[in-house]
Amino acid sequence: MFDQAPEAAAAAAQATPSRPRIVIVGAGFGGLAAAKALAGIDADVTLVDRRNYHLFQPLLYQVATAGLSPAQIATPIRAIVADAANVRVLMGRVNGIDATRRMVRLEERELPYDYLVLATGARHSYFGRDEWEHCAPGLKKIDDATEIRRRILTAFEHAETEEDADKRRRLLNFVVIGAGPTGVEMAGAIAELARRALASDFRTIDPRQARIVLVEAGPRVLAAFPQKLSAWTARTLGKLGVEVMLGKAVTSCDAEGVVVGDERIPAATVIWAAGVAASPASKWLSADADRAGRLKVLSDLSVPGHPEIFAIGDTALSLDENDKPYPGLAPVAKQQGEYVARLLKARLQGKTPAGRFRYRDFGTMATIGRGAAVAKFSERFQVTGFIAWVLWGLVHIFFLIGFRNRLTVLADWLWSYVTFQSGARLITGKNSE
Amino acid sequence: MFDQAPEAAAAAAQATPSRPRIVIVGAGFGGLAAAKALAGIDADVTLVDRRNYHLFQPLLYQVATAGLSPAQIATPIRAIVADAANVRVLMGRVNGIDATRRMVRLEERELPYDYLVLATGARHSYFGRDEWEHCAPGLKKIDDATEIRRRILTAFEHAETEEDADKRRRLLNFVVIGAGPTGVEMAGAIAELARRALASDFRTIDPRQARIVLVEAGPRVLAAFPQKLSAWTARTLGKLGVEVMLGKAVTSCDAEGVVVGDERIPAATVIWAAGVAASPASKWLSADADRAGRLKVLSDLSVPGHPEIFAIGDTALSLDENDKPYPGLAPVAKQQGEYVARLLKARLQGKTPAGRFRYRDFGTMATIGRGAAVAKFSERFQVTGFIAWVLWGLVHIFFLIGFRNRLTVLADWLWSYVTFQSGARLITGKNSE
Repeated sequence: MFDQAPEAAAAAAQATPSRPRIVIVGAGFGGLAAAKALAGIDADVTLVDRRNYHLFQPLLYQVATAGLSPAQIATPIRAIVADAANVRVLMGRVNGIDATRRMVRLEERELPYDYLVLATGARHSYFGRDEWEHCAPGLKKIDDATEIRRRILTAFEHAETEEDADKRRRLLNFVVIGAGPTGVEMAGAIAELARRALASDFRTIDPRQARIVLVEAGPRVLAAFPQKLSAWTARTLGKLGVEVMLGKAVTSCDAEGVVVGDERIPAATVIWAAGVAASPASKWLSADADRAGRLKVLSDLSVPGHPEIFAIGDTALSLDENDKPYPGLAPVAKQQGEYVARLLKARLQGKTPAGRFRYRDFGTMATIGRGAAVAKFSERFQVTGFIAWVLWGLVHIFFLIGFRNRLTVLADWLWSYVTFQSGARLITGKNSE
Repeated sequence: MFDQAPEAAAAAAQATPSRPRIVIVGAGFGGLAAAKALAGIDADVTLVDRRNYHLFQPLLYQVATAGLSPAQIATPIRAIVADAANVRVLMGRVNGIDATRRMVRLEERELPYDYLVLATGARHSYFGRDEWEHCAPGLKKIDDATEIRRRILTAFEHAETEEDADKRRRLLNFVVIGAGPTGVEMAGAIAELARRALASDFRTIDPRQARIVLVEAGPRVLAAFPQKLSAWTARTLGKLGVEVMLGKAVTSCDAEGVVVGDERIPAATVIWAAGVAASPASKWLSADADRAGRLKVLSDLSVPGHPEIFAIGDTALSLDENDKPYPGLAPVAKQQGEYVARLLKARLQGKTPAGRFRYRDFGTMATIGRGAAVAKFSERFQVTGFIAWVLWGLVHIFFLIGFRNRLTVLADWLWSYVTFQSGARLITGKNSE
C-alpha cells in the first residue's frame, strides 16, 4: 500500500475529484429554474421536494372552481429534468439544516451539500388565528384546491335538498377573504360557476341567487396594481355579481360563517386568500427573518454569514436598490433561481460573479372572469378588459410546463368559452363517499 | 266553496293529477340509462346518487396508472340530464327502503315512490377477509384510483432513496390479485408505466427491474373469454414483463406483502381485482340474494312480490332463458335500464309491457397494453392484437359521455402512443404533504 508514489495518489485523486454538490430545496418556480439552469455543469445537483410534481400555482384557482383538472397544471419533476444527467430528484420532506456540517436533514437521512439553495415557498397565514384554517381553507396545494372545489359544489348540492330557507341561504353564501389576485380570481370564478355553468342544473334552487362576497381589510382590491386598475376590477366584479366589501376586517370565522365588521354573514363556504407566510427555512438556519418569516438575504441572495447558502422566491426577503422588497411573484422567483445558477457557475469556474440580483419586471396581470382581466406592463402601459384577458391567457399557456398541458388547458378554455360549461365538476375526497 | 259542481272539482283534480313518482337509486350505467330513457314522460323521475358524477368505470384503471385524470372519465350527473325537465337529481346516500310505505330512506329525509329502480352497483369483496382492504385496495371509485396511483408512484420514489437492497426489492414488487379484465389491465398498465413512462426518470433505480405479478386462483386469465384469447393474453402479458401465476390463491396479505401458495412475495403495492359483491340493496328489502349479494329478480327485472320495484346491473341476479346469470358488464346494465324504462312507460300508458328482458350481446373486450387487446364478438369472430386494441379504444371513446371527455381522452391516448409518456403522474391525497 505504501509503495505508491505520492504523485500517483494525487493523480488518482485528481481523476475522480469529488464534484461540488449543490442541493436545491423546493421545486417551485425558483428551485426549478435554478435546477434547469444548472443542467450539464460539472457539479452534482440534487433537487428535493416533498411532492413529485411542479405545480403551476397561478392556475390553481381554476382547479378549485372546477375549470381544470390537477394534472393539467402539474408536471412530474422527474420528467422535467429527465435529460439533465447531473440533476437528481429526491422526493422527501426537509425538516432541518445543519449549516456547520453542511447537511440538509430529511426525515430518514441527511444530504451533504457544498452549496444550498432554499426555495421552499410560502403557506397561507392566518395572522395568529390558525383555528380559522378549518372553516376557511387557503389555496396553495392541489389538495387545497380539490377540497375547496368539494366545498363549493357540495354547498349547491345540499342547498338543492335543504327545505329550511335560512339554512339554504347559508349554503348559497360564499365568502372570499382577501382581494389580492387569488381572492379576485376565486370570487370571479365562483360567480361565473353559479351564474353560468350551474345555472340550469338544479330544479329547486337557482344557483344564480348565490351571494358571493369578497372581503378586503385594505381600501381597495388588487392593492399591488395601480389605483385605476383596482377601480376597474371592483366595478367588473360588481357586474359579475360579486359583492365587494372594502376596508372591513373579518373578526370571527367559524363553521356557521364569518363576522365582517358588524355584520354576521352565515356561509357554508369561506375561502382564505388574505395572507401568506414563508416556510420555516429561516428557523432551520436560526437566521434573521421579517414578520412574514422571509429570510433576509444579501444583494446576491446569499444568507448573511453563509456565502454558500442562498434563499430565493417566497422564502426570501430580497431588497432592490432602493431597499424595497421584491414582490412574491413567480417571475421574481424564476429570475432569482436563474441568477443563483449563474452565480454558482461563475464561482465554480473560479470567475468573479456578476453584480447584485436585479429583477426585470415585464408586468403583472390578474383575471376577473370571462373576457375580463387587468394587466400592468409599465406605469404608462396598462390594459383592461378583453385584450388583457387574452394576453393573460396567452402568457399563462406559454409559461405552463409541458406541451400536453398547454394543449389541453387551451382546449378546455376554448371549450368553456364557447359552451359556458366547466370541465371538472367533481366532488372527490373527504365525505365524498 | 260548496257551490262548485262536483264535475268541476273532478276536472280540476284531473288537471293536476298527482303524477307517478319514479325513483332511481344509482347513476351508474344502468340507472343513468333508465333516467335518460324516461326523460320527457309524464312522470316525476328522481335520480339519487351519493356522488355528483357518473363514472365511466371501464377506464378507471387508467386513472390508477396515471394515464388519465379523474375528470376525463367522470361527468356531472346534473349536466347529463339538465335538459330533461321531469328528471330531478339528488345527491344523497340511501340507507334503507320502506317497501310497505313505499319510501326510500336517505340520511336526512325520506323520498316517496310509486316505482323504484335499484341500480346501486357493486363493491369489491374480500371473501370474508375484509382486513385485506388496507393492504390491497380495490378499484371501484375515483378515490380508489387516486389512492392506487399514489401507492404505485410513491413506491418508485421510495425505492430511489432506499439504500437497503431487500427493502428496495419490496418497493419494486407489484402484485395484482385476480386476472379478470381489471386485473389484466392493471398489471399491463403498471408494466408499461415501469418499462416506458418512468424508464429514464430515475438515477439510482431502474424502474424496468420492477417485478409485476398477476395472481389468479383459477386456471386461466380472463376466464369469461374463450380459451384461445386467455392463452394469447397470458403470453402477451409475459412479453410485457408481467409474471402470471395461475391456479394459486393468495393465503395471506399484510403491509409487508402477500403469500401466494408457498411463496412469500414482499411487496409495497398490492391491488385487489379478485371479486365484487353487490351493494346492500337486497338487505334493504330483506329479499332473496345469491352469495355475492345480488338480488334475485324475475324475468322482467322486478323483485319477487314487488312488481313496483326493479333491480338492474350489478345489483341484480338476472337469468337468461337458460337460467344462466347475465354477466356484470356495463352493456348488460345499460340494456336493463332501457328495458325497465320501456316497461314503465308501457305500464303508465296502460299498455301491456313487452316480454322478458333479453340481453343483446355485441361482444366483450379487454386490453393488455400498447397495441394489445382481445375482443370476442361471437364464437366465430374473435380478434387479438393491434386491431382489437384500436377497436377497444374506439368503442370506449364512443361510449364515454360528453364530447369534451371524448376529445381529451383521445388526445391523451394519441399523445401517449407517440411519446410513450403518461399524463397524470401526480401523487396526491394521504401523506402527499
